[in-house]
Parts: sequence; structure tokens; C-alpha cells
Amino acid sequence: MKVIFHINEFEKWETLLGNITNLLKDGGDEAVKVRVLMNGPSVKALSDETLLQRMRELSDKGVRFTVCRNSLKALCGSGELCIDEKNLPEFLTVVPAGVTELIKRQTEGYAYIKP
Amino acid sequence: MKVIFHINEFEKWETLLGNITNLLKDGGDEAVKVRVLMNGPSVKALSDETLLQRMRELSDKGVRFTVCRNSLKALCGSGELCIDEKNLPEFLTVVPAGVTELIKRQTEGYAYIKP
Amino acid sequence: MKVIFHINEFEKWETLLGNITNLLKDGGDEAVKVRVLMNGPSVKALSDETLLQRMRELSDKGVRFTVCRNSLKALCGSGELCIDEKNLPEFLTVVPAGVTELIKRQTEGYAYIKP
Repeated sequence: MKVIFHINEFEKWETLLGNITNLLKDGGDEAVKVRVLMNGPSVKALSDETLLQRMRELSDKGVRFTVCRNSLKALCGSGELCIDEKNLPEFLTVVPAGVTELIKRQTEGYAYIKP
Repeated sequence: MKVIFHINEFEKWETLLGNITNLLKDGGDEAVKVRVLMNGPSVKALSDETLLQRMRELSDKGVRFTVCRNSLKALCGSGELCIDEKNLPEFLTVVPAGVTELIKRQTEGYAYIKP
Repeated sequence: MKVIFHINEFEKWETLLGNITNLLKDGGDEAVKVRVLMNGPSVKALSDETLLQRMRELSDKGVRFTVCRNSLKALCGSGELCIDEKNLPEFLTVVPAGVTELIKRQTEGYAYIKP
């Protein structure tokens, strides 16, 4: 089983992290590859220590977190919040365009879930 | 044609049921396998007689409705509403984790639609 | 790479058009087939000259825009807005049921993204 979760709203983090926690519990014997692609305002979570800590814990269990660079730029350009890629924790991967990542993974057979 | 609809917000029921009704009308000769996975606050619909009746009518036309047990537990745990699985109509299937169901079905070739 | 974007809320147009613009920039050498299926209240965009112009520009770059006829009828039936199919720009394709289009494309290997 392979899945990529797509989050683009900041308000959805609680739902997303709960979904993944339940999935890892339920997976049982069968291995589950879990990826998360965050774009849009959801990337504000990268300045939230509590959310980052919860991501890190899931990352330790094998969940891969990917961030859209366009969204980081847009957030900074709007004057709301500038997050420097260089300061991001090592478990996060930044990709140029989040939508490209979503397409590539689905083409590889990943299921898509939008919480 | 095979599709699994994902609903996780209570406010989306009207849209979802309209989508399915239109799909069954449009399907024409080609058979369409339709599944619905409900998780998150959308499971509150299971205490709404009008929505249950509309689900039952679609179930009579072959639509399969599946409910996330984790979401039932979370809803009860929040103190908002406890729904006893044993009292649910027979046309509803409860699965341990809704997200697992969404992944499995997509792996089987079901399209995913989030209304 | 092939993708169908699903939009059903009017408020999501800005996000959708930004996503597609980023995707086309990022695609690089690899050709990307991009489709958009609009249903629900998102079809109100068809009465908005600014949005139509932006769609036309993306259409000139190969993006295919598809409209759900059921949604046009529902919008008109609600008394809010009646859009005559015959007056729609030629680059828009109207299909009987948007959800059928979403299923068919995914069956053809299109990735699904809901902005």
C-alpha cells in the first residue's frame, strides 16, 4: 500500500496527522508507504514547533514530508511569513512544484487522499 | 467504471448525494461501481434519519456505504455524539480505518473523488 | 504526466489557476497533459470575464477545461444565475455529468488533484 496525502489548508493539519496515525495503527502486517505533500497556506505549519514535532515523530516511523517551494515563496511574497528553506529540519524535502510531486507519485501507483 | 467517493465534512452530504444521483443517471449502459467512504465529522449523518433514508435508496441501487470506526470513536470521545455500531442499518459497513479503505480501493483501480 | 484538476467551489479558482501555472512552469522538458473539471458552484466562474480570460490563456497553452452540465442546470434552477451553453467560449467543453468525466480520466491514467 502506498499513499500520498495532499494538504493545502492550515486548518487541516489536525485531521491529516490523525488520519496518518490511524493508518499506521491499522496497517498491521502490511507495510504502508506514506507521503505527505503540503502546499498553499498549509506550509505555515513549518513555523509551528508543535506541528513540526508531530511531523518529526511520524517521520521517525517512515512518513515522508514534502514541501512546495512555490508555496513558500508565495507565503513570503504576501508579507505574511518568510520561512528560510535552509533552516528547515532535515526530515523535510522541498520540491519546486507541489502539484508535480502529486502527479508523479500517483503515476507510480500511490493512492491520493485529500483530508 | 469504479469510483470511491470520500466525504469527511458533514456539510458535504448534499453535494455528495447529488453527485452520485447524477452519476447513476449518466452512467447509461455502462455499469458503474460506486462506493462511499465516510470519516471525520461526516459520520454525524448516521444519526440523521433523512440522510440515512437517502443513503438507503442509493444502496438499493448498488451504492456501497462504508464508515470509519476511528471516526465513530472520536465523535463519541468528544462528547458530541455516540453512535452504537450495532444499531446502524444493515446496509452500512464499518471498517477499522477509513484511510486504509481509500488506499485499498484505489489500488484496485477505483477512481477517487472528493466532493 | 497527465492530471485532471477537480474544482467544485468558486473560492478555489485562484488556487487552481496558480497550481496550473506553476505546473506548466515546472514541467520543463516533460510534456504535461492538464485537464480541469468544474462542477458545483465553481461554474459561476463562467460569468466572470477575468477568470474566463485567465482560463483562455491557459487553454492556449494546452489546458482543457470541461464543465458539468448538471451543475449549470442546478445553478440556473436555484434562480441564482443562468448561463446559456451556446454563449460559452469555444475552448470550453460541456459534459453531461462532471463526476463521470473524473472517473473516465482517472481510468485512463490521469492523476487527480483537488486544490
